[in-house]
This record gives sequence, C-alpha cells and structure tokens, in this order.
Amino acid sequence: MLQPLDDAYFMKKALQEAETAFEKGEVPIGAVVVCKNQIIARAHNLTEALNDVTAHAEMQAITAAANFLGGKYLKDCTLYVTLEPCQMCAGALFWSQISKVVFGARDTERGCIALKTKLHPKTEMIGGVMKEETSHLLKRFFIEKRNLN
Amino acid sequence: MLQPLDDAYFMKKALQEAETAFEKGEVPIGAVVVCKNQIIARAHNLTEALNDVTAHAEMQAITAAANFLGGKYLKDCTLYVTLEPCQMCAGALFWSQISKVVFGARDTERGCIALKTKLHPKTEMIGGVMKEETSHLLKRFFIEKRNLN
Repeated sequence: MLQPLDDAYFMKKALQEAETAFEKGEVPIGAVVVCKNQIIARAHNLTEALNDVTAHAEMQAITAAANFLGGKYLKDCTLYVTLEPCQMCAGALFWSQISKVVFGARDTERGCIALKTKLHPKTEMIGGVMKEETSHLLKRFFIEKRNLN
Repeated sequence: MLQPLDDAYFMKKALQEAETAFEKGEVPIGAVVVCKNQIIARAHNLTEALNDVTAHAEMQAITAAANFLGGKYLKDCTLYVTLEPCQMCAGALFWSQISKVVFGARDTERGCIALKTKLHPKTEMIGGVMKEETSHLLKRFFIEKRNLN
C-alpha cells in the first residue's frame, strides 16, 4: 500500500539521512527538499568528513535542490530537516525564498527561533514533526560520544 | 617599498576579488582570509555562475581556508570582506570561531549587525575599512544593472 506523502513521510526520509550521518560519526542531522511531492535533494551533515563548518545538511540540500531545478530559488519547495536550522542555514533559506521549512526537534540554544534569524516573508516554518525520533538520535549520538571520551 | 600588511592592504585584496566578481556580472563582493599575515584563501561572490544562493564570497573563503589549514576552525584567522556579512555568512563565521572579521561597507538592510546575528564570543568585528571604495563598486554595479533593464 502506498504511504501518503505527508510531513511525517518526508521527515522519515530526512531521518534516514540523519542515520547515515550517525553511522559516519557525524552529528546526526539529515534533510530532504521536496518539490511537487518529489524528493529532489537529500543530504546529511558532513562537517567532520569535509572539515568544513558550512557542510550542514540544509546547506548541501539547498545547493543540490537548486542544481536539480537549474535555478537558485526554491520557491515551490519544502525543506524537511531533523533539527531546527541554525542561523547560517536559516540565512541560506532566506536567500533561497523557499516556500516551507519543516523541522523535527527544537534547538533552543543555537536554533534560528531562539536567535531570531530573519526568514523570508514568503517562507512558512513549522516544527515538532517527529520530534521524539529526531531528538532521540541526537541524544544517542552525544551520549555515545561522551562515553567514548 | 613593501606595503605594511595592515587592514587596508588586505581589504584591497578583497576588493580585487570583488572587481573580478563585477567583471563576471556577479554582485561585486570579495573576501580574503588571512592567517599570520598570509592570505590563505581568496573568493568572490558566485551566486549567478553557480546558481546557488549559498555561494557568497565569505562562505567560499571559509571553506577554502579550512581546506588550506586542514581543520575546520579558523581560530587564528581574520576574514576581510568588502560588505558587512549577511545572516548566513555571519552564522557560518560563528561556527568557524574565527578571531576577527573586518568588513568594508555597511549593509543596513540585510547585514548581520542590523539583523542581530549572533557572533562567536571569540570573534571581534570591525567595519568601515575602505568603505568608500567598497560601496562605490556595489553602487556602480546596481546602477549599470538598472540601466540595462
């Protein structure tokens, strides 16, 4: 039976990306960009592998989606990301003029809501989709990391 | 006679990058990253050529500098950029823990000061270095663009 293409469906796909990041020893955050119910970009955090603080899942997903579309604006797209975007990623989303951002867990310390990063007026943002599953993976990562050190 | 390696010296190098962007039809913003008085990264805005809103001069300079250093933190580095960084770039600079940011012209609408983007506590920021020259190039770009349309 086909699954309905709702927010939880696409967040699961973003979570699969986060799990891939986890397996690589990266902070487990994943993202997908959806346009007309089709996933046009998938990415996960690669800051350790690339030695690059800009290699957040969202940044790579924005670049990949624009590449797929052949234009730099993501006006009819939705980004699904497992954690609330940071200032950098929210700033990139501002420039992309993306229609919608759906995130999982809140980041009350470094997230764009707490830090009041300006979003594009055309962008709708909703949070808390699959927040238990997305935050559980992050917590597991940091517990395991602490135990290793 | 050797020029002293002061802020104006390095801002001129960033301005050369901005001029290269201008010649390519890109919004003319340039940046260099300096470590121990040596330029370790140069970049200019490439958002049009790459069809990518994340391809700001600062973002590329941060990635290139980290690549040169072999580590993702720019703790002993200074970024020189011809325009006040936006939220995205200031957010990336936050993650990089860069020591110092020197910019030329102010961006009172979309710059990180007006939008109160959080900088890393270790980062010092100063602005207004060669502000006439850096803003003149931007003004010339937008006047020429307007006349073409």
